[in-house]
Amino acid sequence: MTTAAAIIIGDEILSGKFRDENTPLLIDLMAELGVELQRISVIGDDCATIAAEVASCAARFDVVLTSGGIGPTHDDCTVRGVAAAFALGVEVHPELEAMIRGYWRDRFTPAALRMAEVPAGSRLLAGGDGLLPLIVCRNVYLFPGVPRLFSAKLPSLRRELKGAVKVLNGLYLRSDESRIAPLLDRVVAEFPEVKIGSYPRFGETEFRVWISLECVDGARVAAAVERLLELLPAEDVVRVDR
Amino acid sequence: MTTAAAIIIGDEILSGKFRDENTPLLIDLMAELGVELQRISVIGDDCATIAAEVASCAARFDVVLTSGGIGPTHDDCTVRGVAAAFALGVEVHPELEAMIRGYWRDRFTPAALRMAEVPAGSRLLAGGDGLLPLIVCRNVYLFPGVPRLFSAKLPSLRRELKGAVKVLNGLYLRSDESRIAPLLDRVVAEFPEVKIGSYPRFGETEFRVWISLECVDGARVAAAVERLLELLPAEDVVRVDR
Repeated sequence: MTTAAAIIIGDEILSGKFRDENTPLLIDLMAELGVELQRISVIGDDCATIAAEVASCAARFDVVLTSGGIGPTHDDCTVRGVAAAFALGVEVHPELEAMIRGYWRDRFTPAALRMAEVPAGSRLLAGGDGLLPLIVCRNVYLFPGVPRLFSAKLPSLRRELKGAVKVLNGLYLRSDESRIAPLLDRVVAEFPEVKIGSYPRFGETEFRVWISLECVDGARVAAAVERLLELLPAEDVVRVDR
Repeated sequence: MTTAAAIIIGDEILSGKFRDENTPLLIDLMAELGVELQRISVIGDDCATIAAEVASCAARFDVVLTSGGIGPTHDDCTVRGVAAAFALGVEVHPELEAMIRGYWRDRFTPAALRMAEVPAGSRLLAGGDGLLPLIVCRNVYLFPGVPRLFSAKLPSLRRELKGAVKVLNGLYLRSDESRIAPLLDRVVAEFPEVKIGSYPRFGETEFRVWISLECVDGARVAAAVERLLELLPAEDVVRVDR
């Protein structure tokens, strides 16, 4: 199964000036594609922090996505951070430079050219969306942080990532979580490949706990659900979603 | 200035089963208290991952807050993770055990006692809120992940953290970001203690860029704003918020 990490870059998110609108969209896309998002990091606009986070994530996950820090101002240091993560230089990409000169025209200034800089050897991923292409450095995709641009770029990522689709089943129980914990432990041990979650729900009148079971192998999910139903007192089970 | 990191623990957030409702509340509280939140990590329910993240954050930030993973089921491994981060054992806290036995009464089961386990030497932080107290291990505060319980516990943290309050000023400009980048660079160099952010805004008719300036020293923020106003073409400035 493909694994992924997201690195959300921006002091403005950490300080509460802007809400992070991008992560929910990304989580939903990864779930839809069956890509296992294993980590999200929100960090500030600091080159060394970005470099350390990208280096660590790029080595451990199949795909790394960064959001933010790719504009023309002093607080935009994602390109330098990603380059430093791989001990690469930064170079002006001639194709990006031509696009920026063409797009900005009379508003063009030398500072705009900072947006043509890429970690050496990066490729461009065009989106057919009228926007600048995504910069891709090895397994790292550099997304813009502005929500409107971020979401416009997601279809490009969707086309790149086509993983297996996970099967998710759920049980709604009126049991206390602590009462069913020993039963869950047994099923977890018997079905190590099925990811089993247990979530208490307050404020619901019908049920007290939701149990989720998921795996790329639908037959194993079904078998784990059957095993749980064998172990649970029948009167505790409110509903099963398969 | 006090620094902080948050570690949001839960496969259910990464897989999109539940939205993270806790982080926005925490961001707002930290901003209100003048505590600098420097990192948010969202990670899965895995003991080794939790231990590594807690160890790394506890060493670098004044305060670390975890959310989630403190219930009685197999996927709750925050206590073990925090203990492992500091190479501590796990022990039953007698005060917690007494509370849980009293609270659960006839519904009490041995599995509920898992919620009385703490990293060795932890202290309890009572909230006067009718809920179990927070577990505090060194500089790490273990919050429940269920949003209703998380938010009920925030006042306890508020009482513990009373930092300096930051001053935030803002400029609204009708300039292109790339045009003002060189001016910003000068002000950033002249006022290293003032944190300056530049955020392009699309879909606004009145302005194109919002510049934020912030520092615990309000006089330095004011001086940086004045310096920027000297450098910027007067016709570019739509509004100044002081």
